[in-house]
Amino acid sequence: MTSIHPSSHVSPGARLGNDVEIGHFSIIHENVILGDRVRIGAYCELGISTPLGDGTPLCIGDDSLIRSHSVFYESSAFGSGLTTGHHVIVREKTRAGPGFQIGAMSELQGDSIVGNYVRLQSNVFVAKKTVIGNFVWILPYVVLTNDPTPPSNVLIGCIIEDYASIAAASVVSGVRVGHHSLVAAAACVTKDVPPGMVVAGIPARVVGNTNTVRLRDGSGRAAYPWTNHFTRGYPDSVTSDWSKDSEGGGQ
Amino acid sequence: MTSIHPSSHVSPGARLGNDVEIGHFSIIHENVILGDRVRIGAYCELGISTPLGDGTPLCIGDDSLIRSHSVFYESSAFGSGLTTGHHVIVREKTRAGPGFQIGAMSELQGDSIVGNYVRLQSNVFVAKKTVIGNFVWILPYVVLTNDPTPPSNVLIGCIIEDYASIAAASVVSGVRVGHHSLVAAAACVTKDVPPGMVVAGIPARVVGNTNTVRLRDGSGRAAYPWTNHFTRGYPDSVTSDWSKDSEGGGQ
Amino acid sequence: MTSIHPSSHVSPGARLGNDVEIGHFSIIHENVILGDRVRIGAYCELGISTPLGDGTPLCIGDDSLIRSHSVFYESSAFGSGLTTGHHVIVREKTRAGPGFQIGAMSELQGDSIVGNYVRLQSNVFVAKKTVIGNFVWILPYVVLTNDPTPPSNVLIGCIIEDYASIAAASVVSGVRVGHHSLVAAAACVTKDVPPGMVVAGIPARVVGNTNTVRLRDGSGRAAYPWTNHFTRGYPDSVTSDWSKDSEGGGQ
Repeated sequence: MTSIHPSSHVSPGARLGNDVEIGHFSIIHENVILGDRVRIGAYCELGISTPLGDGTPLCIGDDSLIRSHSVFYESSAFGSGLTTGHHVIVREKTRAGPGFQIGAMSELQGDSIVGNYVRLQSNVFVAKKTVIGNFVWILPYVVLTNDPTPPSNVLIGCIIEDYASIAAASVVSGVRVGHHSLVAAAACVTKDVPPGMVVAGIPARVVGNTNTVRLRDGSGRAAYPWTNHFTRGYPDSVTSDWSKDSEGGGQ
Repeated sequence: MTSIHPSSHVSPGARLGNDVEIGHFSIIHENVILGDRVRIGAYCELGISTPLGDGTPLCIGDDSLIRSHSVFYESSAFGSGLTTGHHVIVREKTRAGPGFQIGAMSELQGDSIVGNYVRLQSNVFVAKKTVIGNFVWILPYVVLTNDPTPPSNVLIGCIIEDYASIAAASVVSGVRVGHHSLVAAAACVTKDVPPGMVVAGIPARVVGNTNTVRLRDGSGRAAYPWTNHFTRGYPDSVTSDWSKDSEGGGQ
Repeated sequence: MTSIHPSSHVSPGARLGNDVEIGHFSIIHENVILGDRVRIGAYCELGISTPLGDGTPLCIGDDSLIRSHSVFYESSAFGSGLTTGHHVIVREKTRAGPGFQIGAMSELQGDSIVGNYVRLQSNVFVAKKTVIGNFVWILPYVVLTNDPTPPSNVLIGCIIEDYASIAAASVVSGVRVGHHSLVAAAACVTKDVPPGMVVAGIPARVVGNTNTVRLRDGSGRAAYPWTNHFTRGYPDSVTSDWSKDSEGGGQ
């Protein structure tokens, strides 16, 4: 059953699916489409319209959860199962597949493409023109920038390939991060990262192959490809594909 | 006298002490206990309930101040004199002693223990399973993480001992930071920090003893133990204990 | 025509210019002056009064835009054309010239002076006693601190001179950053930066002259002084002054 808190303001033009919940004091503008069972927390504003939009609506897929104090502009689209933390900001022309998680206080500046089941943790910054593949992990306080010589009109978005993992507080500046690679915490990445490699430091350099990194649980098992030991929160249909892959990670 | 702004929503089940103030548009859910003289700013939501809670309430001690746009979940408890900045997020099962200060836009992910008179400045991130001692200082944009090989199920929380100081924008990843130590700004700490030592760099290495660091005020005085020269905002009952200690810092 | 959403709370004492717009659920306290054509988004609180103020009002210049979830205290003043992102925090005694842009989730702790046409991008932290010149660029997640030996009572604010550019995720700690200089991404700056030089690393060292940095657009043109190729968003009256300068950047 749809439940709209009486203190919220929902435009009559907004199109809501079945069993939608909208919390206290939230604002849903006209050019918004919410799927079935979408839940919106308190103090959210969805569908802000500016000249940067292209007239298309903000589309939120089925079974999504947008936590309180979040702001979404129009002209973006998200697959089913979008989940956000609190205080998230998403600008125009962001497109993401299903299962996208956006951590608290993260900001997507728009004009970006995000694949399937991507996880951004808290306070991640995604500049315009970023392209993120599938099953990517981006840990807290990572900054993906696009201007190698600020300020300039040369915007080079990062490309983050499938299964890559970018550890906390790293800066990645307009480069390609290869599939199944690992960017260590607090790195500053200014050159492309080869697939399957670990980079670390400022500026980041290749320090080894991900297959030499061990889990810190005393088991001696390899930490990468992480798909060999980590499946939390992914649907079985996805992780069964991973286990079928003899390389263990789709490489 | 208790003052609840008429635009706020306070559950009849919430238990409020004397002389509580609740600002515009705030939401106090049922499973919340506020002490005497607690002040809640505008646009706050307190006592969000999820399956991650254990049924216990959110308890806020006497004389606390929670600034606007902050979010607290249930099943956490704070001693008297909690003070937060704006836009703070605190998840379930966070327990802190008296005098806890949380800077603006900081996030505590829960399952953590915080001692007495701990000060987090702005934008500090505290991952699950973190343990923080007494009189600790954590400066802006510090990230305390818990997964050494992300993503994995191996969560190793940081342990920050008494009187430690962690300077701005450092990352501390699942290690023990010794008492009276100093982590320099922008360090990435991946090994335990010995008591009383300074670590710096990426990865962080010991660069000296804190007793060699001088105040930058031209006095030539030692900057550490900081308890010898800094008492701002602590109750006299606390700082008189410090001065009684011949080591000057409780070492 | 002035437009105040009926869900907002505007003090009768606040002084509003012509054609002001105030969004849903916002709070304008008494000691606030808004210029003509100022637009305030939703969930903003302006003019918070504390003992740290000096009794003077919060003054917002003509043609300003304050986006949603932002918080301003009293006793600060901004020239015309202030623009902020969402979730911004500005404390008492901040003074800025015209054309100031503050990115989303940035925090100014007050007691600071900002020149003309300064641009802070997202999540920038400005400690007390900071002085920023004209036409400065500060990129996302930069931290400007003021305490070289935390915690202490020795507060040394950063001085950022005209046309300097500080790239993403750098920490600048109580030093002078010279005019037309460039601080590379993820640097930690603990010594003064000479004018026109590039610094990088932790701790930051001079790595060259800005005039050796090329634009990444294949043109081979110099990236600095950036005023030679970048004028987006500045008024013609400003950029025509730049082009008249034979040094190309006012050096």
